[in-house]
Amino acid sequence: MSKRSGKLVRWMLWVVAVLALFFLGFLIGWFAKPAHPEKTNPPSSQYLQEFLEEMQPSQIREHLRKFTRLPHLAGTEQNLKYAEQIQKEWQEFGLDSVEMVPYDVLLSYPNASQPNYIAIVDANGDEIFTTSLAEPVPEGYEDIGDIVPPYSAFSPKGQPEGDLVYVNYGRTEDFFQLERQMGINVTGKIVIVRYGKIFRGNKVKNAMLAGAKGIILFSDPADYSAEGVKPYPEGWNLPGGGAQRGNVMNLNGAGDALTPGYPAKEYTYRTSPEDGVGLPSIPVHPIGYHDAFHLLKNMGGPTPPSNWKGALNVSYRIGPGFTDDVKNQSVRMNIYTNIKVTRIYNVIGRIRGALEPDRYVILGGHRDAWVFGGIDPMSGAAVVHEVVRSAGKFVSKGWRPRRTIIFASWDAEEFGLLGSTEWAEDNARLLQERAVAYINADSGIEGMYTLRVDCTPSLHTLVYDLTKQLASPESDEEGLSLYESWHKKDNWTNDRDAPRINKLGSGSDFEAYFVRLGIAAGRARYTKNWKTERYSSFPVYHTVYETFEVVENFYDPTFRRLRTVAQMRGGLTFLLADSQIIPLDANQYALSLQKYARSIAVLGQGHMEEMQKYKVSFDSLFSAVENFTVAARDFHERLQNINTADPLQVRAMNDQLMYLERAFIDPLGLPGRPFYRHVIFAPSSHNKYAGESFPGIYDALFNIEDSADQEKAWNEVKRQISIAAFTVHAAAMTLTPPA
Amino acid sequence: MSKRSGKLVRWMLWVVAVLALFFLGFLIGWFAKPAHPEKTNPPSSQYLQEFLEEMQPSQIREHLRKFTRLPHLAGTEQNLKYAEQIQKEWQEFGLDSVEMVPYDVLLSYPNASQPNYIAIVDANGDEIFTTSLAEPVPEGYEDIGDIVPPYSAFSPKGQPEGDLVYVNYGRTEDFFQLERQMGINVTGKIVIVRYGKIFRGNKVKNAMLAGAKGIILFSDPADYSAEGVKPYPEGWNLPGGGAQRGNVMNLNGAGDALTPGYPAKEYTYRTSPEDGVGLPSIPVHPIGYHDAFHLLKNMGGPTPPSNWKGALNVSYRIGPGFTDDVKNQSVRMNIYTNIKVTRIYNVIGRIRGALEPDRYVILGGHRDAWVFGGIDPMSGAAVVHEVVRSAGKFVSKGWRPRRTIIFASWDAEEFGLLGSTEWAEDNARLLQERAVAYINADSGIEGMYTLRVDCTPSLHTLVYDLTKQLASPESDEEGLSLYESWHKKDNWTNDRDAPRINKLGSGSDFEAYFVRLGIAAGRARYTKNWKTERYSSFPVYHTVYETFEVVENFYDPTFRRLRTVAQMRGGLTFLLADSQIIPLDANQYALSLQKYARSIAVLGQGHMEEMQKYKVSFDSLFSAVENFTVAARDFHERLQNINTADPLQVRAMNDQLMYLERAFIDPLGLPGRPFYRHVIFAPSSHNKYAGESFPGIYDALFNIEDSADQEKAWNEVKRQISIAAFTVHAAAMTLTPPA
Repeated sequence: MSKRSGKLVRWMLWVVAVLALFFLGFLIGWFAKPAHPEKTNPPSSQYLQEFLEEMQPSQIREHLRKFTRLPHLAGTEQNLKYAEQIQKEWQEFGLDSVEMVPYDVLLSYPNASQPNYIAIVDANGDEIFTTSLAEPVPEGYEDIGDIVPPYSAFSPKGQPEGDLVYVNYGRTEDFFQLERQMGINVTGKIVIVRYGKIFRGNKVKNAMLAGAKGIILFSDPADYSAEGVKPYPEGWNLPGGGAQRGNVMNLNGAGDALTPGYPAKEYTYRTSPEDGVGLPSIPVHPIGYHDAFHLLKNMGGPTPPSNWKGALNVSYRIGPGFTDDVKNQSVRMNIYTNIKVTRIYNVIGRIRGALEPDRYVILGGHRDAWVFGGIDPMSGAAVVHEVVRSAGKFVSKGWRPRRTIIFASWDAEEFGLLGSTEWAEDNARLLQERAVAYINADSGIEGMYTLRVDCTPSLHTLVYDLTKQLASPESDEEGLSLYESWHKKDNWTNDRDAPRINKLGSGSDFEAYFVRLGIAAGRARYTKNWKTERYSSFPVYHTVYETFEVVENFYDPTFRRLRTVAQMRGGLTFLLADSQIIPLDANQYALSLQKYARSIAVLGQGHMEEMQKYKVSFDSLFSAVENFTVAARDFHERLQNINTADPLQVRAMNDQLMYLERAFIDPLGLPGRPFYRHVIFAPSSHNKYAGESFPGIYDALFNIEDSADQEKAWNEVKRQISIAAFTVHAAAMTLTPPA
Repeated sequence: MSKRSGKLVRWMLWVVAVLALFFLGFLIGWFAKPAHPEKTNPPSSQYLQEFLEEMQPSQIREHLRKFTRLPHLAGTEQNLKYAEQIQKEWQEFGLDSVEMVPYDVLLSYPNASQPNYIAIVDANGDEIFTTSLAEPVPEGYEDIGDIVPPYSAFSPKGQPEGDLVYVNYGRTEDFFQLERQMGINVTGKIVIVRYGKIFRGNKVKNAMLAGAKGIILFSDPADYSAEGVKPYPEGWNLPGGGAQRGNVMNLNGAGDALTPGYPAKEYTYRTSPEDGVGLPSIPVHPIGYHDAFHLLKNMGGPTPPSNWKGALNVSYRIGPGFTDDVKNQSVRMNIYTNIKVTRIYNVIGRIRGALEPDRYVILGGHRDAWVFGGIDPMSGAAVVHEVVRSAGKFVSKGWRPRRTIIFASWDAEEFGLLGSTEWAEDNARLLQERAVAYINADSGIEGMYTLRVDCTPSLHTLVYDLTKQLASPESDEEGLSLYESWHKKDNWTNDRDAPRINKLGSGSDFEAYFVRLGIAAGRARYTKNWKTERYSSFPVYHTVYETFEVVENFYDPTFRRLRTVAQMRGGLTFLLADSQIIPLDANQYALSLQKYARSIAVLGQGHMEEMQKYKVSFDSLFSAVENFTVAARDFHERLQNINTADPLQVRAMNDQLMYLERAFIDPLGLPGRPFYRHVIFAPSSHNKYAGESFPGIYDALFNIEDSADQEKAWNEVKRQISIAAFTVHAAAMTLTPPA
């Protein structure tokens, strides 16, 4: 080999080696790159902590201060101004878009020139006592106009006059007791019932069904005072001059009464008010306990059972009418309230998802208030405002969640969840196809004790996980996690050693999203100790005394409790929007279904004989729940083993998680309640606030006793069991491998 | 520099250079690899051609031969045997899975020991004429048992006796003419109407509403004979002894009459038959024209309008009753048909999608036949069998479509689309979330002229594209594409120079998928020349003469027409399942909506005065359609520009395409028809076979004339316009960018 050729060979070897190295590099480069690059953001948890820490008590205080200076009833100029301010600030915070979405819905206001009141009239028809026309205005707010006096929204006009009958809380069981045990008929009478225990609309419906011609709602101190607490402003109890406003509709999820099923747009056809959904047919009016004392003190008739007695210094006699010495006196209601189609405004803000802009996580809560809304809803709205500020700050820094986040400031919640329901109707198709979860934000605080969460079972695990990452806001619990504090104060049951989580009922804006559309939903707030604090809601609920000061002076002086609520609502929203795998847990749904099936079966077994006679069995339901349990377990096992680098595999499994809640929706709805379509959860027919599990079966069983045709009534039970069993089977199917 | 250090430097330079090269290679490798590798299959079109060419006339002939040897009525042993055979063969063809899915539904059969017939009775009540108990059996089939005699399925039992009234086709307009112009009341009479023009169930409903106590359906030669064609077996016309079987339900999409809304499983609650959906309340029976001649020949009463006259040698007098000389004779129906909950079987086969197993394209058609089902449905089922064989062959070779394909052999279509509807109910949630399209496969051929396609507007473009790739099957059209042949023979209108495509009506298994669930749907078959061939359906429809031979000897001797139908049904399925971008066209939907809006507005303008008086306007509808048109155009523009290498972007746009049809679904359903939920298309209330656009508005306008309360009737028109406008707006929203 010549030197030259040797050099050539060496040269060629070099070239080959270099090429080989280049090729090796190419190959390593090729294979080093993930085939399906997923989001390259660091794990969510890092950002989660930063995000949670961004939220500040002082900011929440400032938001609350700003939005509680003036009354902002739905449909008023001031509520539109707040909407515009929120729109502007959300834009400044850094959201991608913030739009104002109006609807024209039926609202109800007192007649400005003819006030509502109730009178005692003597034999000549002269009014010898009249209830107050307004609540005494709290200090510092004396110059503020536009404070709507206490009234029952959507009461018809009318001046019914007659004898009073006292019916305790006006519950189904109270009317049963009145009619069946006491033998008292309220036809043609005016019933007076105390506020509390159930939604006021249910009381009105019960009174209508019983034949009453009017209904008076009063706040009894027994139900609106905490022990050892003074009335506002010295404490946070209800003063005697305060009265609870509120709507008295039975909408059953219909939204605007004139456009059920469709958004109340300009071009939308409206039924006449006579055909409106859920409007009461008898006058209704709320009063405080000072006025109630005067109506109750002379009542005659039988003495009440002890659990019908409130805390006023009266005998709580049932009536009808007054004692013998004033027998000739009667009661007249003077109601002049008007209904009116009025424009309302939702504010809708968005952060576009980086990878899945077509998947939505919604954080929504209402803005409209009866007066200042210090607690309801602004303690919640301030929290949402702080979540938006914190999220906006991250977006400004270049961060973007995997999925789209939608923030909503709803209008006219107080008139029947109108803003949220109309928007749900407007966007039903998009939501059905794309909504991952809905987090609700009504009042952020109703007590000073611990956390309260109501949510769908598939959110249980996420809620626990998040609370373990948060600190207790209580000053005497330093070092304790929120989970530990909550667990200590409200353990679920003997069966389950974990903090209690409640079923969703209704009475707030999640209703259309959860019960009509089947979107996984949850809500979190700070609450009282339910074991020891037996008053209803919080004492100054829906009165003029719901001010900024009631929060700052009593409920949350450091605003740390509300910060915790912000972290809960914001954290849930964040994790649902940004986790690669949607953090919903089908196994928890299975556990809950097992529990609900057992308890509805126990209810059925109260009628063992008829169950046998009519061949009623819960076997198909138990078998379906078992099937669901296996499907859920298998699903989560498969989920452990998917290739998280494959975007289509991830998307498909996420779709199964997203659509799990949807699977419980039956488009035919519950009997007589076409907009309550969730087969597992619906508001109770007897109390809208409470959530009923297997509501179709429950109602069918409840109706057994009253039914003249027992076979027909039991057939309805069988039909409802069959529907529930099918629905649970169908939901199980959605969790199995798709092909 | 020493030699040694020089060498070191050179060495280091080398190392650096080599490393640089390696790094360069790495970088090139990294970037050369697509970030989001999509399916590496060659373009679909290559496989499409191979797939289309795989389908063979001889194979279709063999399938048809095999599955038409024996009668296979729904619910019989033989129909189960065919199901098992199909299951076995589909497995052998190479499908991933083939399962048998049973339901227990209400069917209806003649009483084996007490035959149904109609008699003329004399004054003594003696039957002096009786209709035939069965059709003369065609040659070659004499030894076959289990041929069900002609009957009207779901007729109640009964022996009504009375005078006949002839009401032409029994259409709404025929009864209007009878009552309003001729002043004849059919209360307590037996009506006799000829088959044709509309679905027989509508005739029965009209007779019931008019007060008749029985209804006789007869096939008039005018409606069941083609000119110049001999009766079977010499030709393909209906013989005088043939009579059309068929169900006479008015289910309106409910499926099984006893389990509306839910699948008829073993555990499912069943209503009593009295509460069943759509069951007729008066006896019904079908007869051929030989028998009809005897019933009609002596009829008295007024002479009919000329368009009421058929082709029998009788006067077609209206009645009631016979001519004076036989006035004392009357007609008695003897109907003993039973209803019975019976097990039926769907066969469901699957090819799992390679990339998107959770997206479904369905090709389904029924298997059950009234007798042999030579045309209906086996000419279609043979075609599906051939599509499955061809697809299976590809799967065996390792091919797999992008999306899952589901093949279905439905049972009990003839009894009200039961098998397909129960399966749709069973799988409603999966289908709503995952179904891309449903291709229907009933009778493959009903004429010898050209192609017929009925489909949703978004499939128009795909249908045209596919037909351009296929050859005409006509022997005298060599070199002509199917598109060219079809276009030549059936141009749409003067407005649109393209082959005619029809709206979907009902009367076949796509109904639950399209009208209830909102899945894009279409059907294709070979048809007659509708301009010149005016007979109804095809003459031997639903008779014993629907044999293999009627196809082999007359309709498609070379089986090339059916091959073309196989290529259409298979090709549509293939392209929907395998195209990266789902080949649905929103622009075509926009075009159709424009057309439908114009024509419903024209209908309204027939009442100009009232429209003004009641302030009825179609403006909101036109504005919504305009909005939809813009959204569709913009969507397809964006679709042109997406990064097709990004799987999530492709999936999101495909989801928008998939859910477009779903957007037209209103869960509240049409008035009184809860299972017809499509706001744009529904079966006509007057003829189930026909598709009505904007059916809610149409029906509201139709009802104007009959309404005592005009304001109320016009309010319903306004409400329906509002619902339609909203729905079109909502559909437009689904096409806009998702966040």
